[in-house]
Amino acid sequence: MNKVDLSFQSCKSSYEEADVVIFSVPMDSTTSFRPGTRFAGNAIRVDSIGVEWYSPYRERDLNEFKTADVGDLDLPIGAVEDALDIVYKTTKQILNDGKTPMMVGGEHLVSYPVIKAVFEKYPNLHIIQLDAHTDLRESFYGRDLSHATFLRHVHKFVGDGKIYQFGIRSGEKPEFDWSAQGHTHMRKFDFEGLDEICEQLKDVPVYVTIDLDVLDPAVFPGTGTPEPGGMQYKDLLWAFDQFQKLNNFVGADFVELAPMLDPSGASTAVAAKTLREMVLLLQMNREKR
Amino acid sequence: MNKVDLSFQSCKSSYEEADVVIFSVPMDSTTSFRPGTRFAGNAIRVDSIGVEWYSPYRERDLNEFKTADVGDLDLPIGAVEDALDIVYKTTKQILNDGKTPMMVGGEHLVSYPVIKAVFEKYPNLHIIQLDAHTDLRESFYGRDLSHATFLRHVHKFVGDGKIYQFGIRSGEKPEFDWSAQGHTHMRKFDFEGLDEICEQLKDVPVYVTIDLDVLDPAVFPGTGTPEPGGMQYKDLLWAFDQFQKLNNFVGADFVELAPMLDPSGASTAVAAKTLREMVLLLQMNREKR
Amino acid sequence: MNKVDLSFQSCKSSYEEADVVIFSVPMDSTTSFRPGTRFAGNAIRVDSIGVEWYSPYRERDLNEFKTADVGDLDLPIGAVEDALDIVYKTTKQILNDGKTPMMVGGEHLVSYPVIKAVFEKYPNLHIIQLDAHTDLRESFYGRDLSHATFLRHVHKFVGDGKIYQFGIRSGEKPEFDWSAQGHTHMRKFDFEGLDEICEQLKDVPVYVTIDLDVLDPAVFPGTGTPEPGGMQYKDLLWAFDQFQKLNNFVGADFVELAPMLDPSGASTAVAAKTLREMVLLLQMNREKR
Amino acid sequence: MNKVDLSFQSCKSSYEEADVVIFSVPMDSTTSFRPGTRFAGNAIRVDSIGVEWYSPYRERDLNEFKTADVGDLDLPIGAVEDALDIVYKTTKQILNDGKTPMMVGGEHLVSYPVIKAVFEKYPNLHIIQLDAHTDLRESFYGRDLSHATFLRHVHKFVGDGKIYQFGIRSGEKPEFDWSAQGHTHMRKFDFEGLDEICEQLKDVPVYVTIDLDVLDPAVFPGTGTPEPGGMQYKDLLWAFDQFQKLNNFVGADFVELAPMLDPSGASTAVAAKTLREMVLLLQMNREKR
Amino acid sequence: MNKVDLSFQSCKSSYEEADVVIFSVPMDSTTSFRPGTRFAGNAIRVDSIGVEWYSPYRERDLNEFKTADVGDLDLPIGAVEDALDIVYKTTKQILNDGKTPMMVGGEHLVSYPVIKAVFEKYPNLHIIQLDAHTDLRESFYGRDLSHATFLRHVHKFVGDGKIYQFGIRSGEKPEFDWSAQGHTHMRKFDFEGLDEICEQLKDVPVYVTIDLDVLDPAVFPGTGTPEPGGMQYKDLLWAFDQFQKLNNFVGADFVELAPMLDPSGASTAVAAKTLREMVLLLQMNREKR
Amino acid sequence: MNKVDLSFQSCKSSYEEADVVIFSVPMDSTTSFRPGTRFAGNAIRVDSIGVEWYSPYRERDLNEFKTADVGDLDLPIGAVEDALDIVYKTTKQILNDGKTPMMVGGEHLVSYPVIKAVFEKYPNLHIIQLDAHTDLRESFYGRDLSHATFLRHVHKFVGDGKIYQFGIRSGEKPEFDWSAQGHTHMRKFDFEGLDEICEQLKDVPVYVTIDLDVLDPAVFPGTGTPEPGGMQYKDLLWAFDQFQKLNNFVGADFVELAPMLDPSGASTAVAAKTLREMVLLLQMNREKR
Repeated sequence: MNKVDLSFQSCKSSYEEADVVIFSVPMDSTTSFRPGTRFAGNAIRVDSIGVEWYSPYRERDLNEFKTADVGDLDLPIGAVEDALDIVYKTTKQILNDGKTPMMVGGEHLVSYPVIKAVFEKYPNLHIIQLDAHTDLRESFYGRDLSHATFLRHVHKFVGDGKIYQFGIRSGEKPEFDWSAQGHTHMRKFDFEGLDEICEQLKDVPVYVTIDLDVLDPAVFPGTGTPEPGGMQYKDLLWAFDQFQKLNNFVGADFVELAPMLDPSGASTAVAAKTLREMVLLLQMNREKR
Repeated sequence: MNKVDLSFQSCKSSYEEADVVIFSVPMDSTTSFRPGTRFAGNAIRVDSIGVEWYSPYRERDLNEFKTADVGDLDLPIGAVEDALDIVYKTTKQILNDGKTPMMVGGEHLVSYPVIKAVFEKYPNLHIIQLDAHTDLRESFYGRDLSHATFLRHVHKFVGDGKIYQFGIRSGEKPEFDWSAQGHTHMRKFDFEGLDEICEQLKDVPVYVTIDLDVLDPAVFPGTGTPEPGGMQYKDLLWAFDQFQKLNNFVGADFVELAPMLDPSGASTAVAAKTLREMVLLLQMNREKR
Repeated sequence: MNKVDLSFQSCKSSYEEADVVIFSVPMDSTTSFRPGTRFAGNAIRVDSIGVEWYSPYRERDLNEFKTADVGDLDLPIGAVEDALDIVYKTTKQILNDGKTPMMVGGEHLVSYPVIKAVFEKYPNLHIIQLDAHTDLRESFYGRDLSHATFLRHVHKFVGDGKIYQFGIRSGEKPEFDWSAQGHTHMRKFDFEGLDEICEQLKDVPVYVTIDLDVLDPAVFPGTGTPEPGGMQYKDLLWAFDQFQKLNNFVGADFVELAPMLDPSGASTAVAAKTLREMVLLLQMNREKR
Repeated sequence: MNKVDLSFQSCKSSYEEADVVIFSVPMDSTTSFRPGTRFAGNAIRVDSIGVEWYSPYRERDLNEFKTADVGDLDLPIGAVEDALDIVYKTTKQILNDGKTPMMVGGEHLVSYPVIKAVFEKYPNLHIIQLDAHTDLRESFYGRDLSHATFLRHVHKFVGDGKIYQFGIRSGEKPEFDWSAQGHTHMRKFDFEGLDEICEQLKDVPVYVTIDLDVLDPAVFPGTGTPEPGGMQYKDLLWAFDQFQKLNNFVGADFVELAPMLDPSGASTAVAAKTLREMVLLLQMNREKR
Repeated sequence: MNKVDLSFQSCKSSYEEADVVIFSVPMDSTTSFRPGTRFAGNAIRVDSIGVEWYSPYRERDLNEFKTADVGDLDLPIGAVEDALDIVYKTTKQILNDGKTPMMVGGEHLVSYPVIKAVFEKYPNLHIIQLDAHTDLRESFYGRDLSHATFLRHVHKFVGDGKIYQFGIRSGEKPEFDWSAQGHTHMRKFDFEGLDEICEQLKDVPVYVTIDLDVLDPAVFPGTGTPEPGGMQYKDLLWAFDQFQKLNNFVGADFVELAPMLDPSGASTAVAAKTLREMVLLLQMNREKR
Repeated sequence: MNKVDLSFQSCKSSYEEADVVIFSVPMDSTTSFRPGTRFAGNAIRVDSIGVEWYSPYRERDLNEFKTADVGDLDLPIGAVEDALDIVYKTTKQILNDGKTPMMVGGEHLVSYPVIKAVFEKYPNLHIIQLDAHTDLRESFYGRDLSHATFLRHVHKFVGDGKIYQFGIRSGEKPEFDWSAQGHTHMRKFDFEGLDEICEQLKDVPVYVTIDLDVLDPAVFPGTGTPEPGGMQYKDLLWAFDQFQKLNNFVGADFVELAPMLDPSGASTAVAAKTLREMVLLLQMNREKR
C-alpha cells in the first residue's frame, strides 16, 4: 500500500524522470478585491478525476508523456518578497535541470519570478499574456510588486516589443496610454491577431501567461475580480491551437482561479482542462525541439 | 379541495387522456464523478412556475395539448439492472398505449432502456445524440452498462449508421477511433451539419437524446462533469428548429441535470425550458402524423 | 474622520453639484417567482471596489464627471402604490433640478413611475427596452401594475410607435400579438436593428430601460426569472456603443439584479460595470447638449 | 400510471377522508428583510423523502393516520388583503368540514387569518407562540397587517390573557412594555414555564403557532431574519412533549422557512421533521377527543 | 523536489513504518437521499491545513506518532459487492501487518467489511456506534447490504449484546422493537450511559463507528440525511474522553461527510478534527498495550 | 436629497458629536487558511437593517446614544506594518478626542495596534480575550506579527497577569505551556470563571477582544478557521452580562467574520447583533464614569 497520491490526473512521474514539471503557488497576498487563489492548486488536483487524459483537440494523451506534479510550494504567509524568491528559485532549478516549468497560480504577481527565471535562461524571451486587466501600473496601493503591476516590472527586463497582450478590457487610462507608446502590443477586448503573432514568434522563445479572468465571468465566475465582456472557452481553445504552432514554447502559467467563489466546480473544471491542454502543448513542443 | 398537484407546468392531463407522457428517472448509480442527477425531475417540476407555457420559438402553447406527467419512477436504490428494467417496462407501456415518451434523467445510462423499448417498436430507429461525451466505451470501471458506455450498447441493437453524435468534446482515444471506423456519425465540438442530417432523416423514426452537458458549463453548471468549450443555449434552440422538420419524431429525453450543483437555479431553468420545447416538438410532430 | 461613504465607486458628489443622480429602489413586491431584487443597490455599492473608474469602451473616466449617489429610497413595504409614488416624486425632483436620473431596480415595475416622470418633462419621449420578457400584459395575478404589465401601462401615455423592445424571448401569446398590431416595435431574441433605431432616434428624447435578464443566465444568473437563450455581455457593450450616438439621452435604468441568487458575485459585477457605462453615457450625452 | 404525487411524505389521503389537512401559503409580501418563505411548502414536500414516517418521540407512525396535503394555496401576488382572505376561507372550510388545519407558511402574517378562522369556531381560543420576535407592533412601515404586527391584531379579538409567547428575543421597547401591561404572557429568551402553561391550558382550545426563527440560526439558518441566541432543536422537541399533554389542540402552524437561504437543506429538514411531529400531535389529539 | 504529498496533516509516514493507517472509501452507492460522501476523504486531506496537530483534549501531538495515509481506495463504481470486498481485503491486510485501521467513509455501509475483518481478528469484538439512525433494517429498497441495514448484518456475526448504539433518533418502528428484544443496547437521543459502557468494555476489544450525522445538523450540515435534534460537538469530545479509558481499542471509523453539501467548510472541519482525535486515541491505545 | 448613508444601524452621528466610534479594518494579510475577513465591516453595515436597535438584554436602545461609524479604514494592501500603523494612529486619535473605540476586524492581528494605543492611554490595561485559538506563538511562518502571535506581542507591553483568555481550544503545545507558566490566565474550552474575573477587574481599565471563532462553527460558520467544540451564542450573551459589571470598559473589538464563507447571512447576523450589544455596553459604561 502506497501513500496517497493526489498528483494532477495521470501526471505521476517523479521529478527526476519528468520533462514538464507542474507546481502551484498558493499566494494571494496582494489581491486587492476578493482573495482565495491560494487554494487553486489542490482544488484542481482533487477535481482532476473529472477530466479525461486524452485531448480531442491535441489528439494526444497525457499518459504518453512524463510529467511531474510537485504540488504547492511552501511559502511564508504575508511576506511577499520572500515568497517570490522561493518561486524564482524553484523555477531556476526546474530550468537548470532541463525541464519545462508549468506554473499554476495564485494571483498574477507570482508570474513575475517565474518569467524572470525563464528570461535569464532565454534572454530573447517573448511574452504572450491573455488577461482582462492591463497589469501595467507602476505601483499599486503603495507597492511596486503587485498583481496590478507585475507586467510593467516584467517589461523592465524584457524591454519594448517583447510583450503581447490580448483580451484586455480593464485598467487605468495611463496604462492604456503607456502601452500605446509602443511598450507593449495590446489587443483590447478579444484575441484578434493572435494567430499572426504566433506565426511571427514561431522561432523565438515564448512564454505564455494566462490570467483566466480573460474569460467571461459566465465561463469562469470563480475569480477574485470578475470582469464582464470576456472570452468564451472556445476562444481559449482556438488560442491553444495557435500556441501549437510555436517551435520554442519554453514555459507557461495560468493564474487567478479562486475555487471557493464558484462552488459549482465549473471554474475548477475550466482550470483543470486548461492545465491538461497546457501540459500537452509544452510536451508536444519538446518533441519538436 | 384537491391534493397537491406539482405536475410540470400545465401538463396536468391524466395518463389516459395524454398524447405525450413525461416521466423522470431518479437514478445516478453509475455516475463516476459528482452525483445528484436523481433530483432533477422534481426540481424542474417545482421551478416550472418560472417558465411561460407559450413558446415564441414554436409559436405554440403547452395548453393546446394533452400531456401527462407521471413523476419520478419508483426505483430500487443501488440495483442498476433492476432499475433499468423498470424504465424499460414503463417506456414499453407508454408506447403500447399509443403515447409518446418524454423522459427526464437521471444519468445518461437511463436512456438505454428507453431507446431499447422505442427501438422494439420502431426497428428502423435513428438516434440523434447531443452530448459533450462520447459514451462509447465497451465497459467502464468493470461494468458493461454505465453512463460512459450506454451508446456503445445502443449500437449493438440499432447497428452501424443509425447514430448521429454532435457536440462531442471528451472521451478516450479508442472511442473516437471506433466511431471513425463508421460505427457512428460523430461531429466533434459543435452542431455543424445537424440541419442536413435532420433533412436526411425526415421520414425515418428518430429518437433524440440530449445530455445537457453538451452546453457550456457557463450555461449549465449544474451537472456532474462540466466540460468547458460547449454550446450556447441559442445553439440548442437552433437544434430544436431542426428537430421540428422531422416527420417521425417518436421519443426523446434529456439527462444529467444535478440541481444541487447550481443553487442559482439557472441550470434548472435551462432544463425546464428544454422540457417545454421538447414536449411541444413531440406534440406538434404527432399532429403531422 | 468622516462618516462611512459607500457611494458607488467615485460618484461622491453631493446632490446639489451633481449632473447625474444615481438612486436605487429596493422593491420587489410584485415579483411572481424568486424575489430579492430589493438588495441590488447596496450590493452594487459594496462590490464597486472591484470595478475600474475608467472605461476603455468610452475612453472616459467616472472621475471626470460630477455624479451623486443618493442610495436606496425609503419605501413602505407591501404598499405598492405608495412606493411607486415615492419613486415618481423622486424622479420629478431630480428632473426639476436639471439633473439626469439613473435608476437602479428593484423589479421592473419600478421603471414605470420613473418613465412617467421623464415623459412629463419630455412629451415626445421614446423608450428603448432591452428585456427577456414582453412585460405587456394588461393585468397579472389580478393587479394592473406589475413587473409583467408595466410596459403596457407605459404605452397608455407614450402611445403607439414610441416603444422599441429588443431581446424578447418570453411572454404570453396575446402579448406578442398585441405588439404585432403596431403598438410596439419588438425584436425577438436579439438586438438586431438596434443600431438603426438609435440612428433614427438620434434627435428625439430617449429613455433606456434594461432588464438585465435580457442577458443569458450564463452571464447573469443572479435574477429572479432566468430565461435561457439570451445575450452575451459583449452584445450589451455593443448596445452601449449605439446609445452613445443618441443626442438626447434623458434618463435610464437597469433592473432585476437579485444578488443573493448568485453568491459568486459575477452578476453583481455585471451590474456594477453596467452602472459605470450607463453613468458615463448619460454624462457624455449632457456634454453634447 | 398515475399523475405525479408530491404530497408530504405518506400524507396521501384525499381531502374528503382526511382528519388533518396540510396546506401551505406561499406569501412573503410584507417581509421587510430577506424574502423567500413563499417557497417553503414545496421545498418541504420534495425533501420529505429524507424523513422517516415513524417518530421515536411520539412512538407513532404517520401511516397510522389519515392526512391530506392540499398543497400551496393559489394567491394573488402583491395583494395582501385578498391573499389573507383566501387563507381565511380555506381554514374556515377545513374547520367546517370537521377537520384540523395544519398550515405551513410563508411569512408570519399568514397565521393571522388562520387563527381568526379557528377563533370563530373556538371563541375561548388560547394561543401559544414560539418566536424570536414580539410581533406586537401596532403598525409597521405604514401597514396595519404585517409579519411584525400580526399578534397585536390577533389580540384584538382573542383579548387579554389568551396569548402565551416564548423564546422572544427581538422587538421594539414599546412592544415589550405593552406585553408587560398584561396583554400577553411573554417569556423572554427561552421556553421556561411552557410545561406549566400547557398543564394550565389542558382543557381549553389551544392553537400553536411556531415561527421557526425561535430556533438559533445555527439550527435554522434558512430564514429571512436570523436572530442569534435562540433555542436548540432538542428544546423544540421538549415543547412538543408539552403539547402532547393538551386535550384540545385545535390547529397549528409553523412559518418563516426560506429554503433558498440554506442550500445545505438542513433548515428544510428541520421544517420537515417539525411537520411530521405536528401532524402526529394533531392526529393523536383527535384520538383523545 | 518531491511529488505532491496531500496526506492528512502530519500523517506522512510510509505504510511500512506506520502504527495506525488511515484509508478512505469513496463509496455512496446505496445512499437513498442526497449522495456525495464519496468526496469526504480528499476534502478532509486538503482542508487539514486548518487544523492544529496538537490536541489540547488529549494533550498529545500527531507528530509524536507514526501514522500513514494511504488515500482513497480504488473502487469499481456501481458494483457494491466488489467494492465492499476491496474494503474488506484492505482492512485484513492492515490488521495482518499488525497495524490499526482508521477508516473514513463514504456511506455507513462501508463500515460493514471493515468490522467484519476486525471481528475475524478479534472474535470477542464489541461495537460502539454513535449515529442518528438505527441502521437495523433487514433489507432496504430490495437490498440486503445497505447503509440502512449494515448494523443488522454486523449483528449476524457478532451476536446479541455486543453492539452499543447511542444518539439514535430515526428509524422504523420494527427496528426499535427488534433492538428492544435485546439484540442491541440502544440509547435513544443522546449519549447517556456511554461512560459506564466504556468502563464495562475496558478490557474487551472495541471498535467504534461514528456516523457523523449523530451530530445536530447545526454542527454538521454537510451530510446526506440531516436529522435535527442531535448532539453538540462538545458531546462528541466527551465521548472521546470515554474512549480514552478503553484498553483494547482495535479500530475505528467515521462516515457520512458529504462535503459539497456544506460549502462553508465547517462540516469538513468537524471531520478533520474528529480524525485527529481518533488517530490520537488509537495511537495512545497502542502505547498502553 | 442626501448622499447614501450606510452607517451601522442608527449609528449616524458625526464623528465630532459621537461618544463611541465604530471603525472597521479590512485586512486579512497574515491569514494562513481561508481569507475574506476584509469584507466584514461593510457586510455588517448592509445587513444591519435586519437587527433591531433595541436590546432586550441591555434594555436600552442604540437610538438613545451618540455613536459614529467612520467605515473601513483605507489601507495599503500587502503592506502589513504600514496598515497596522494606520490602525494605531486612528485609535490614538479617537482616544485623544475623548471617545471610545469599537473596532471591527479583519483578522485578529489588527487588534494589536488598537490595544497598543489603548494601553498607552491606560497603562494599567487588562485584556479579556474570547477566542478559540491561543494566539501566543512567538512567530508564525517567519513573521513576528501575525494573527497567530498577536497576543504574545501584546503581552510584551502589558506584562504578566494582565491577559485573561477564555474558550481556548486550539494551539501548539508550547503556547499552552507558556501560558501555564503564569504569563496569561487561560480558561480552556469554555467561559467558566469569567463572572469572577469581571468582578475582580471591576475598577481597572479593561479592553475586550472577541475572536468570533470562539463560537461553535454551528453558530458562526463564516470564519476562516472554524474550530468545532465552541460556545453557543447564549454563552456570549452571558459574557456580555458580565462585561456590564465593569466600571472602566475602555475599548473593544471583535474580529474574524469572513462573510462570503456563510452565504446564508447567519454569521453576519451574529456579528451585527454583537456590534449592537458591544456599542451599548461601551455607551452604558461611559454613563457610569
